[in-house]
Parts: sequence; structure tokens; C-alpha cells
Amino acid sequence: MSAVDHLIHSNSEYVIDFPGARPVKPKLRLTVVTCMDSRLDLFGALGLHIGDAHLLRNAGGMITDDILRSLAISQRKLGTREIVVIHHTDCGMENFDDDQFRAELTDETGIAPTWDVPGFTDARARVRESVARVRECTWLPYREDVRGFVFDVKTAHIDEVS
Amino acid sequence: MSAVDHLIHSNSEYVIDFPGARPVKPKLRLTVVTCMDSRLDLFGALGLHIGDAHLLRNAGGMITDDILRSLAISQRKLGTREIVVIHHTDCGMENFDDDQFRAELTDETGIAPTWDVPGFTDARARVRESVARVRECTWLPYREDVRGFVFDVKTAHIDEVS
Repeated sequence: MSAVDHLIHSNSEYVIDFPGARPVKPKLRLTVVTCMDSRLDLFGALGLHIGDAHLLRNAGGMITDDILRSLAISQRKLGTREIVVIHHTDCGMENFDDDQFRAELTDETGIAPTWDVPGFTDARARVRESVARVRECTWLPYREDVRGFVFDVKTAHIDEVS
Repeated sequence: MSAVDHLIHSNSEYVIDFPGARPVKPKLRLTVVTCMDSRLDLFGALGLHIGDAHLLRNAGGMITDDILRSLAISQRKLGTREIVVIHHTDCGMENFDDDQFRAELTDETGIAPTWDVPGFTDARARVRESVARVRECTWLPYREDVRGFVFDVKTAHIDEVS
């Protein structure tokens, strides 16, 4: 059985107790931005329920234009107000050399990536930078309630970065 | 208590039974791309466990450059091989007028968005387009195993789009 066939089978059991339709606008009026990392189960780790919050995830939980696009839609069209940014320990984007990575892709494929998303060396410093980047984005009408955390992949504890 | 304080409290209970460190490379060698929508609990809906799969999420589950950047890192640096794309019913990006939205942001803030991510009218057609876009991306070394689904927000059933 491939990984995906396993997912389909699991889904057939999940539907049995699914609570049914919830509104498209998140109940907690909250958006969480974090990394794609496989060790972050946000529903579990944050006690979220179906319909509670928007979840945005990319490699590194970086505040890219696509994340800002999504946050703008989340706030302006779907009623969210608070934002949480979570980076984590042992991240693949720590000490990641994006210049080298883009050169590698360009060399191999002949197509140069359009992005410029450097890695980072310190998760707490990166949280502060990410929170600042969100707060500076004038496309977002609600930028007062932006809080940042580091998730520890060994313990699952989220530590607020002030 | 703010929404975020509620998350912090829930996290303090979650850590008690957390299974501990897992490797940074996903066990199922799988990446899932989907929407930020609050009704998609991917761990639950797909039977995922801590450490199983990378999860990428933005407004609409659209295959943007940031998603391709993340997929390229996921496959080239963190060992994933299979990709699943999931769109869903009742999506905020259905019938979304991105031209109007970008004009709205430009008018209000004086800063024109850099993105161009149109909405869609049919989730199944959008799944086919998204799967095709991933398969065309030469930055990704593994493009054979890309499968697409529509998640029904009323039932939680995932329906494969062939």
C-alpha cells in the first residue's frame, strides 16, 4: 500500500465521527503561520477544533508574499483578527543557503527561481523578524495582535518570544 | 482570555503525552498541499502521525511559487517523494476576483501586490490544474506520484480526482 492509499483508508474511518459543516469564517478569528515540518500537528499542539483557525504553512514558516496574500484574504474576506507565527527547533531552513539552492536549481533545470527566501540561524530572532514583517504589512488591516512562538520538536512546548 | 491564551493553555496539556523527537525527514516521504481553511485537520482527516509528512497550506491551496519553493526543498533536502494536492468544497477562493482584490489593496495602501493568483470556479477542475502545474515543475525531481483530491467540508470525505 502506498502512503497515499493509507491516507484514503484512514479518511474512510475519520468521516464516521466528523462533526459536519462549520462556517467558512474561522470561529477564533485567528490565523496561524508556521513551517511545513512534519512534527507540528497544530490541531493537537494548540487545542484547535474544526472551524477554529486558518493555518498557513510553507518551508520555514517564512513570511513570503504568498503568506501575506493569504493573510490579507484571511483578514479582509474571512474575518480573522489575530495572527500567531510559530517557528520551531531543528528546522530545515536553519543555516539553509538559499543562494546556493537557487543556483543548484538554475544549473540543473535552466530555469531560475523567482524567490529569494534566505534561511536563518536563530529561531527566536527569526520569530521577531517574522512578527515585525507582518506588523509592517499595510495590506493587513489588523496588526495589533501578532504574537510569536518557538515550538520545541522534542517536547512540543511553545515558548513565546517577546 | 484571548484566542491565543487559550492555545497556550491547550499546549501545556498537549506536551504531557507528546511522543518526543522524530527525525526532520518525513517518515512517509510525503508532502500534502492544501488550503488554509479552518475545517481541514490534516492529521485527523488523513490519519497522519507526528513526523509523517510535510504540510503546505495557503489561501486556496494554490500552486504558487512559494509552494513550489517549499516542494523543491521538501524533495531535494528532506527526502520526500509523493505529493498530494487537496482542494475543498465551499472554498473562499471559489469565484474570488483577484484582480479586484489587488486593485482594492493598491487603492487603500498605495502598494501594489506582486502576486497574481486568480480564484477558480470548480474545485475538481482546479485539482487537475494544480496537479498538472506540479508535474510541469522541473525544479522537482519526483513528479510521478502526484495525486489530487477534493475534501468535502460537510462530510470530511476526500474524493480522488482522476
